[in-house]
Amino acid sequence: MSKQHQLEELLQQMTLDEKIGQLIQLATPFFKGAGNDGQITGPMEEMGISEETVRNSGSVLGAAGANQTIHIQKTHLEENRLHIPLLFMADVVHGYKTIFPVPLAVGCSWNLELAERSAEIAAKEAAVSGIHVTFAPMVDLVRDPRWGRVMESTGEDPYLNSQFSRALVRGFQGSNLKNDTLSVAACVKHFAGYGAAEGGRDYNTVNMSERQLRESYLPAYKAALDEGCEMVMTAFNTIDGVPATGNEWLMRELLRSEWGFNGVLISDWGAVKELIPHGIAENEKEAASKALRAGVDIEMMTACYDRYLKELIEEGVVEECILDEAVMRILTLKEKLGLFDNPYRGASERLEKEVIMCEEHRRQARELAEKSCVLLKNNGILPLDKEKRVAVIGPFANSDDILGPWSWLGDRKQAVTLYNGMQKNSAHLTFAQGCEIERVTKEQLKEAIRVAEQADVVVLALGEHSEMSGEAGCRADIQLPLAQLELIKEMQKIKRPIVTVLFNGRPLDLHGVMEESDAILEAWYPGTEGGAAIANLLFGMCTPSGKLTMSFPYSAGQIPVYYNAFNTGRPKDAPDAQERYVSQYLDIPNEPLLPFGFGLSYTTFRYRNGTLSEQKLKKGETISLSVEITNIGEREGDEIVQLYIRDVSGDVVRPLKELKGFKTIHLQPGETKTVSFTISEEQLRYYHRNLQFKSDNGAFIAYVGGNSQQVEGFYFELID
Amino acid sequence: MSKQHQLEELLQQMTLDEKIGQLIQLATPFFKGAGNDGQITGPMEEMGISEETVRNSGSVLGAAGANQTIHIQKTHLEENRLHIPLLFMADVVHGYKTIFPVPLAVGCSWNLELAERSAEIAAKEAAVSGIHVTFAPMVDLVRDPRWGRVMESTGEDPYLNSQFSRALVRGFQGSNLKNDTLSVAACVKHFAGYGAAEGGRDYNTVNMSERQLRESYLPAYKAALDEGCEMVMTAFNTIDGVPATGNEWLMRELLRSEWGFNGVLISDWGAVKELIPHGIAENEKEAASKALRAGVDIEMMTACYDRYLKELIEEGVVEECILDEAVMRILTLKEKLGLFDNPYRGASERLEKEVIMCEEHRRQARELAEKSCVLLKNNGILPLDKEKRVAVIGPFANSDDILGPWSWLGDRKQAVTLYNGMQKNSAHLTFAQGCEIERVTKEQLKEAIRVAEQADVVVLALGEHSEMSGEAGCRADIQLPLAQLELIKEMQKIKRPIVTVLFNGRPLDLHGVMEESDAILEAWYPGTEGGAAIANLLFGMCTPSGKLTMSFPYSAGQIPVYYNAFNTGRPKDAPDAQERYVSQYLDIPNEPLLPFGFGLSYTTFRYRNGTLSEQKLKKGETISLSVEITNIGEREGDEIVQLYIRDVSGDVVRPLKELKGFKTIHLQPGETKTVSFTISEEQLRYYHRNLQFKSDNGAFIAYVGGNSQQVEGFYFELID
Repeated sequence: MSKQHQLEELLQQMTLDEKIGQLIQLATPFFKGAGNDGQITGPMEEMGISEETVRNSGSVLGAAGANQTIHIQKTHLEENRLHIPLLFMADVVHGYKTIFPVPLAVGCSWNLELAERSAEIAAKEAAVSGIHVTFAPMVDLVRDPRWGRVMESTGEDPYLNSQFSRALVRGFQGSNLKNDTLSVAACVKHFAGYGAAEGGRDYNTVNMSERQLRESYLPAYKAALDEGCEMVMTAFNTIDGVPATGNEWLMRELLRSEWGFNGVLISDWGAVKELIPHGIAENEKEAASKALRAGVDIEMMTACYDRYLKELIEEGVVEECILDEAVMRILTLKEKLGLFDNPYRGASERLEKEVIMCEEHRRQARELAEKSCVLLKNNGILPLDKEKRVAVIGPFANSDDILGPWSWLGDRKQAVTLYNGMQKNSAHLTFAQGCEIERVTKEQLKEAIRVAEQADVVVLALGEHSEMSGEAGCRADIQLPLAQLELIKEMQKIKRPIVTVLFNGRPLDLHGVMEESDAILEAWYPGTEGGAAIANLLFGMCTPSGKLTMSFPYSAGQIPVYYNAFNTGRPKDAPDAQERYVSQYLDIPNEPLLPFGFGLSYTTFRYRNGTLSEQKLKKGETISLSVEITNIGEREGDEIVQLYIRDVSGDVVRPLKELKGFKTIHLQPGETKTVSFTISEEQLRYYHRNLQFKSDNGAFIAYVGGNSQQVEGFYFELID
Repeated sequence: MSKQHQLEELLQQMTLDEKIGQLIQLATPFFKGAGNDGQITGPMEEMGISEETVRNSGSVLGAAGANQTIHIQKTHLEENRLHIPLLFMADVVHGYKTIFPVPLAVGCSWNLELAERSAEIAAKEAAVSGIHVTFAPMVDLVRDPRWGRVMESTGEDPYLNSQFSRALVRGFQGSNLKNDTLSVAACVKHFAGYGAAEGGRDYNTVNMSERQLRESYLPAYKAALDEGCEMVMTAFNTIDGVPATGNEWLMRELLRSEWGFNGVLISDWGAVKELIPHGIAENEKEAASKALRAGVDIEMMTACYDRYLKELIEEGVVEECILDEAVMRILTLKEKLGLFDNPYRGASERLEKEVIMCEEHRRQARELAEKSCVLLKNNGILPLDKEKRVAVIGPFANSDDILGPWSWLGDRKQAVTLYNGMQKNSAHLTFAQGCEIERVTKEQLKEAIRVAEQADVVVLALGEHSEMSGEAGCRADIQLPLAQLELIKEMQKIKRPIVTVLFNGRPLDLHGVMEESDAILEAWYPGTEGGAAIANLLFGMCTPSGKLTMSFPYSAGQIPVYYNAFNTGRPKDAPDAQERYVSQYLDIPNEPLLPFGFGLSYTTFRYRNGTLSEQKLKKGETISLSVEITNIGEREGDEIVQLYIRDVSGDVVRPLKELKGFKTIHLQPGETKTVSFTISEEQLRYYHRNLQFKSDNGAFIAYVGGNSQQVEGFYFELID
């Protein structure tokens, strides 16, 4: 009998309560064996979950550790009538115990291999702890740095996000979930468009045309599914007035029918019940009905399904076959993970000790952190001379708050702080606190001045504490807190070179930092090995190569600003542009302070002899754009070479540039390499007014360069 | 023979060139009789317009004055083969010579009668000067105060904008364009959605769903057409990727087919050729083809039609019947205006002298300015005691830059400055410049301090010069310029009460003003009689009654913020809301600094005994919400009573509140009036997912109050 048949037979045996149970995900404390022996008290009691519901439930949120997960599973298998194993799910976003840089930083590495490897390591550590599914990757396109969750995304570009989406899914899932018990199933999120929350305020309204959604926001989710991602999580936001979690068009029509996704769809935390405050359901019963009919298989953390699905089915409001489909999808995932054969899967206390935070994992985390930092400015003071006296000052100078949001299992005590990392490389290091993140005292400033005066160089470690970004961590003002700006001002008076290292979860408004610093290294939240990686960069053991994947706005008043925008009818940079009547702000430039793709190195790369193989691209054939890149500096280094294309005239307005390819090369001083990109008609397709995805014949420009602004362009024509 | 037949016969006689000529609008200098005798030189020559084109052209942009327009028309009738009169069009936005407050200020009056009267006066002054069509009203819904053109709109509410849209069309057009030669045809603009320019940057991309467009942005344009508005102007922006000016869906399908508009559609200035930089036309020929096929009858200020329409028609790319339709619409408008019978229509040098800037017009402008100012704060210092010594300080203290943008024919020398206005009421007035708009010197500050020290009260007149808003007048930073914030700081040190009067074209970030002032009067750009009106308010000859129609954001980082937003799934103000995981910014409130509908008075209004006539509203019937309002202060005053409705649960998420009615009452001290609003099912309709416009049975809340935040709510149910 085929596996499919076995599952169908199992479904036949299930009571209505048991079926509904599979759709219910409860937090760890509900379960016996979780430490409190499943005593349902306090907030859990308020949810109105009965012991029977726990016995029938299909999955667990947030359990971790082989001991705990094995114990919960064991108890559950004894109590569940049909012995259906639990699925263990958790947020393993940028590492389990070995914490990698936050995804926005990973994006800046443009390194798909290291990203994949980081997911593989996270999966391994999670799998030996008994986790089966991670709520990652998050692939929401982001354009608003006020939004706290931009740190969870790889940035503002659909193509780059799609590449990372695939790499991370590959990393988490490996090639075979059943055989490779050190992998976990991935759950791409948040479907869909969550990154476009109005005003950058978390959970807020999203509104755009369907064409825009398909063109910019959907590709990265689709990429994850194309890579075989097993699960999808709904978004908190509305899409054109309908909350994603109750959106039939989005999930039944687009995701399931059009894209053919047949995996498990889970609501985000509490999102089913949230249909009520959203105002599309009057009560929990209607919320349950709308969510299930829209396609949500598993309800996370609210009890609408538990309370009302049975009633809804008995009343005929929801057809039982819809429930059956959902149950089958969940059972199928359990089967794919091999849980019917081995309900404990990879969970192993022995392997936990061997695998988690092993030296190799830390090394990988360090390497990715090195590649993720972006050098924003350098007047020559970097790399630091090891013989110089360096004062490391600021709230992040010796802070272990460098793991970033969504690292709930990370251990800050295991993190290498900047000071620790630098200490291994220099005998001439001093330290001062300087200020807190959001407070400063006269004494702190005085002490900082005293320490700085004794040094040749000041390294200022500044930023946002990790609660200032992440979920619900939205800021209207995206400058550094005033206390830190005051510290910089005081430091300037000492007349020592200032190297600023930034720890933060979003592009910042760098007023008060950019001009005031001699060099700036954007370190984001670099993870467990952060301090070691930054020290390697600062002292020149390796060379910065990261490039921004989200524009740094000139100020909050410039938001949204992103490289792949449109030209308008009155572009400011047109040769015949008027002085006033052009699309501009009177008080700031149109361009961001730092554009997409931007990042400095300790060496310099010269682009020469860009050549297009043909001026005409015939459909079905390809042309190639090649360019010679020479390292004309004195250090070896990596350069991320970027290909952009512009469609000059279309059925709808087209972005000024769109990333269509990138390659990273390593060059020794004086070395030259030729980088070649293939261009085909497929890359020129876009969504037309009628939502057809196709290309148009006509003029295009291919650009190549080291960032989205400094490029050389080459005209070509697409012909039949 | 009917008029229609006569026009059709005329069309039969026209050559292709002559027909195309009707679609061409040229600026005044092209025409003989315009002063330069139509010598085509300089920039005009560059446009490549031939004398033959001028002879055939159908309309003139920007001519004004009976002498000039009569002369141009006379010459044209002699030179045009078929003696087809020219249409004279111009931007008469908030007054011709007698300048009324800017539309955003007019909105704050909530006074439809005065708004209508202002349009009637503007029309009269324009008509006697020979103008036939005004490019007004502008009814773009606005939510982003960075955008310079918010001053041209009546605000952020679809219902209120629609009411003003109708009032202004009535005012401009009167009841009969042919008989009433002191009226002008109105041209509603900018079709469509121009107010949603991304980032508040003028001419920028607009993207939203069609449902959102219909729900919020289209109603005010539709209202103008329902009122009989003769013309429509296209917008500069794209709508879902297609520039409005080349948007067949928007103009052919929606405007013409669905709405049945058969009047003249004109492009905005140069917008046809701008299809090229937008990137939906490769050249002028394609731009001409796309614009005409999309439905643009008249091309303003570029020459694509002139150069390429003939070719396009001869090649069969554009059908001649499309051209014929456009020509017929233009000829019909000329006929409606009576130009075939009287090509000079209202133009009269004698009437110009009698009508323009007459005392009655100035009085009306003063009254509307009084009603348009909004009292934002008052700790009791206002109204001013006439016996007190008042120092009037600041760049707007004696500035005549108070007419605002789009007042090109207004004469600043005729404007009553604040100082002039106050002087008529007080013998104890002193003056100091204090600073320039964007600059300040030590001497200016010193002088201001000296003057302020001699006074009992300081009136600070601050704001933006008129180039800081209006078309292309966009600002990323919406605070007052630093120089003025410095002046306030200095003034605070003198310890005199500070009354700030603001002259500006947008809601401002009032950091540095709100706390620092004892009273704030928002005067916007109040027009010709501004200073007199403000003086009347400051000295208490009348009582402020204006209420904001656009939210004042807490800071630029809060944009967009508007009252009719949605609830999200995690509203911050829910009874069971968590501390962190709610929709909020960490650093500022969700609410704007000053909400829609807000405005203080010199007296106080108490709302009591709100009553809903029925708890259930049956379709086809009505219920009424009444409330007693008592003036419990010591001065008579006007109160604008506002009705809002919330649909608790819908097919799509529904705004927290929507304005559905308002009434202005005048109350003597101690007087009580009962205000009653009728509620019917029609008011509860909205666009569903499938774009059906209808209501749903279920729960609603009707709110009544003096602004959008301070309201009392009453539940009711809609039933069949």
